[in-house]
Amino acid sequence: MADSLNCDLKSLSPLQLFERVTEQGEKVRALKAGKATKDEIDAAVRMLLSLKLSYKTTTGQDYQAGLPPKDLVLINNGTAKEEDEDLVDPWNVQTSNAKGVDYDKLIVRFGSSKIDTDLINRIERAIGQKPHHFLRRGIFFSHRDMDQVLDAYENKKPFYLYTGRGPSSQAMHVGHLIPFLFTKWLQEVFDVPLVIQLTDDEKYLWKDMTIEKAYEYARENAKDIIACGFDINKTFIFSDLDYLGTSAGFYKNIVKVQKHVTFNQVKGIFGFTDSDCIGKISFPAIQAAPSFSSSFPQIFNGKENIQCLIPCAIDQDPYFRMTRDVAPRIGQPKPALLHSVFFPALQGAQTKMSASDPNSSIFLTDTPKQIKTKINKHAFSGGRDTIEEHRKYGGNCDVDVSFMYLTFFLEDDDRLEQLKQAYTSGELLTGELKKVLIETMQPLVAAHQERRKQVTDEIVKQFMTPRKLAFEF
Amino acid sequence: MADSLNCDLKSLSPLQLFERVTEQGEKVRALKAGKATKDEIDAAVRMLLSLKLSYKTTTGQDYQAGLPPKDLVLINNGTAKEEDEDLVDPWNVQTSNAKGVDYDKLIVRFGSSKIDTDLINRIERAIGQKPHHFLRRGIFFSHRDMDQVLDAYENKKPFYLYTGRGPSSQAMHVGHLIPFLFTKWLQEVFDVPLVIQLTDDEKYLWKDMTIEKAYEYARENAKDIIACGFDINKTFIFSDLDYLGTSAGFYKNIVKVQKHVTFNQVKGIFGFTDSDCIGKISFPAIQAAPSFSSSFPQIFNGKENIQCLIPCAIDQDPYFRMTRDVAPRIGQPKPALLHSVFFPALQGAQTKMSASDPNSSIFLTDTPKQIKTKINKHAFSGGRDTIEEHRKYGGNCDVDVSFMYLTFFLEDDDRLEQLKQAYTSGELLTGELKKVLIETMQPLVAAHQERRKQVTDEIVKQFMTPRKLAFEF
Repeated sequence: MADSLNCDLKSLSPLQLFERVTEQGEKVRALKAGKATKDEIDAAVRMLLSLKLSYKTTTGQDYQAGLPPKDLVLINNGTAKEEDEDLVDPWNVQTSNAKGVDYDKLIVRFGSSKIDTDLINRIERAIGQKPHHFLRRGIFFSHRDMDQVLDAYENKKPFYLYTGRGPSSQAMHVGHLIPFLFTKWLQEVFDVPLVIQLTDDEKYLWKDMTIEKAYEYARENAKDIIACGFDINKTFIFSDLDYLGTSAGFYKNIVKVQKHVTFNQVKGIFGFTDSDCIGKISFPAIQAAPSFSSSFPQIFNGKENIQCLIPCAIDQDPYFRMTRDVAPRIGQPKPALLHSVFFPALQGAQTKMSASDPNSSIFLTDTPKQIKTKINKHAFSGGRDTIEEHRKYGGNCDVDVSFMYLTFFLEDDDRLEQLKQAYTSGELLTGELKKVLIETMQPLVAAHQERRKQVTDEIVKQFMTPRKLAFEF
Repeated sequence: MADSLNCDLKSLSPLQLFERVTEQGEKVRALKAGKATKDEIDAAVRMLLSLKLSYKTTTGQDYQAGLPPKDLVLINNGTAKEEDEDLVDPWNVQTSNAKGVDYDKLIVRFGSSKIDTDLINRIERAIGQKPHHFLRRGIFFSHRDMDQVLDAYENKKPFYLYTGRGPSSQAMHVGHLIPFLFTKWLQEVFDVPLVIQLTDDEKYLWKDMTIEKAYEYARENAKDIIACGFDINKTFIFSDLDYLGTSAGFYKNIVKVQKHVTFNQVKGIFGFTDSDCIGKISFPAIQAAPSFSSSFPQIFNGKENIQCLIPCAIDQDPYFRMTRDVAPRIGQPKPALLHSVFFPALQGAQTKMSASDPNSSIFLTDTPKQIKTKINKHAFSGGRDTIEEHRKYGGNCDVDVSFMYLTFFLEDDDRLEQLKQAYTSGELLTGELKKVLIETMQPLVAAHQERRKQVTDEIVKQFMTPRKLAFEF
């Protein structure tokens, strides 16, 4: 019951869900007060629990009587989003479209630039090799100032990469790998230093979690990140809780950003309210500061003016819009950005994957059997209801999650195109497409697990030790 | 003219002053537009400049057309102060009473406890010697939980001292020494570790100042603090900009406090507005964190539960009310407090001394001649207008600034009492009282300067290096 109920509830806003939970709670109380039968009460309680679960899944928070969900976040500095617009910010991604978020609209709304064929060709010329399939297939689809990074690169001026992760639980899913896989490729083709921020302080501030737990997750997540194959001589991974107490340069940049951003601004950008803790309110400066090379004096020899390039999912853009706004006012270059689309949940592209629902995605800890079962059972299909209809009308790759996953993880362009045509024409059935995905994901996850086993605590410690990297500045 | 004008203007609120400056500006423009005579215009301009100076003296900010002064700060968590109440917060001290702030009322309003004879006697028994004259004379007049500190001390449980300073300029005045002189005495009689915070980050956030300048002031101020005679083996002095990047324990406590204080709370306590930068909004956590011993793992061996005692001027109490509110929620003991009265400006007890006005106080860099001139010229007198009247009616020690200064700096109780009686009876004239003050302050400041000369950069560096002190934990 809960499952079909959850399907119905998916279209509800957090506030509507909150009202449904409240109503149902009142109904349970009324039944109990009215001495209803045990069966009636039990059914109402089961419904109440299901509603509470949906509320938690949607809002990421436990239902609390009398405490409605926080206002939906405003986008574009205080302009409320229009009814049919997608909701995209660092904590929420919501769309009512099965194809996922409308990224062209997002580019216009965020004021970023589309990664077009010209830019991809320019990258190809600069690096002298075929660009990553994430670029070719529009998975990294938007940018800010990537041309300037290429200008610098062509003029032999240095730049560095910065990406990060909020370590909210031990288990990472394959979607979490996207920015890291792409960053690893960028690091290899451009041969530049890379810093990776683990915002354990953010997770402590936002979640019901101890500092110790947040830090433990950071180190566990670092193992998965390292298992992507980063070069230990060119990569510095840091936990905020750790590194802030190790680098005066980092704190100085944080306080500089904090001086130049008002509460009004973070309210407009992130939707904070007066009831938010002061830690949340000042946190954006902590995610901003690694965009400035002087936060890493040990790497950049104290140099302040080295260009930063940030590959990240587009939901992180609000932090860096703010950073780019502040940068010239504190005498620092604006970081450039490369934005990725969101990785869809197995159940469909309407939402970002949730690390708290094991069936919403393929986790890096899944066994081959779990991967097979999850894909077969949960991957939303763009196929037809019957084999006959499918053969006649064909499947819809635009909403088929198995096909979407293959665009992320199947590197062979020709094979992907063949699959698309076969599925669209009806030649390939849903079960067959799922089989291709299973056979793609099983070895990929197994290989990751194998590499992760090699990542000892000692290796994590080395990556996380502030030190000079294999570059001269 | 400016002086008598300033006297009239003293009774005006910052907003009234702002309006007077605005009106006068309009008058000047009207005179110029109406082709008034040069003399008329010059007189109006002089008046405008005087008004602007008064505005700056009162508010600590330059007049900016169209930008009225910030709302007066709310005290006691959002309860607006009553008309006749003194204004006391970390950035403003205002009273209309020449005797100074009404401290008994302040104790009631802040909810602290008076340091009464019983407590002073108990301190005397605990330490086995006469309490400091700052205690005997009510200069430290209020406390929170000092009994608990004495309980701990009598049970041989350790505690530590924490005080601080916002290093806003190179020149410190004698009033700045009060908390340090008292803290030095506390350290000696109780034999406990001491940490001294220099909030250079706060000054950077609040003032038009670079980070480098704020840090430079911190080190310069450290020299004056060290010259008070602190024991290098028992004292750790730290700049926030420095130490935050050296101690993970400190940042962890900051982020813990930041998680447990909302914007609503700091708005109520400190009067922040939505236009304030996020650095100011989160700063109170940085002043709170040294109240917890785990901020200093190198001193306390990582121990979390060591009681802290904070001697400070009462205007700093809002920070520590907040800290005491948060402490139990993050599993830490509440810091105890000892509050001092404000040190009066030479011109009278209505305002706290201002480091930006060289005539408002005796600076630690003043020559004997400057001290003499300042006291003779600027020290507000409680004497009568003529010698005849003075002999007949006597002087008023309650408002006489020279006498007030002597209660701070003349250690001999009998001598002070004699002076009081002689001045009150009319036997001692204002000039004679001023002479006693000059002869008290000149050697005191000269001795300080002599000791400061001995404080080398190397000694400052030692005091400011995170290290173990001469205590076992």
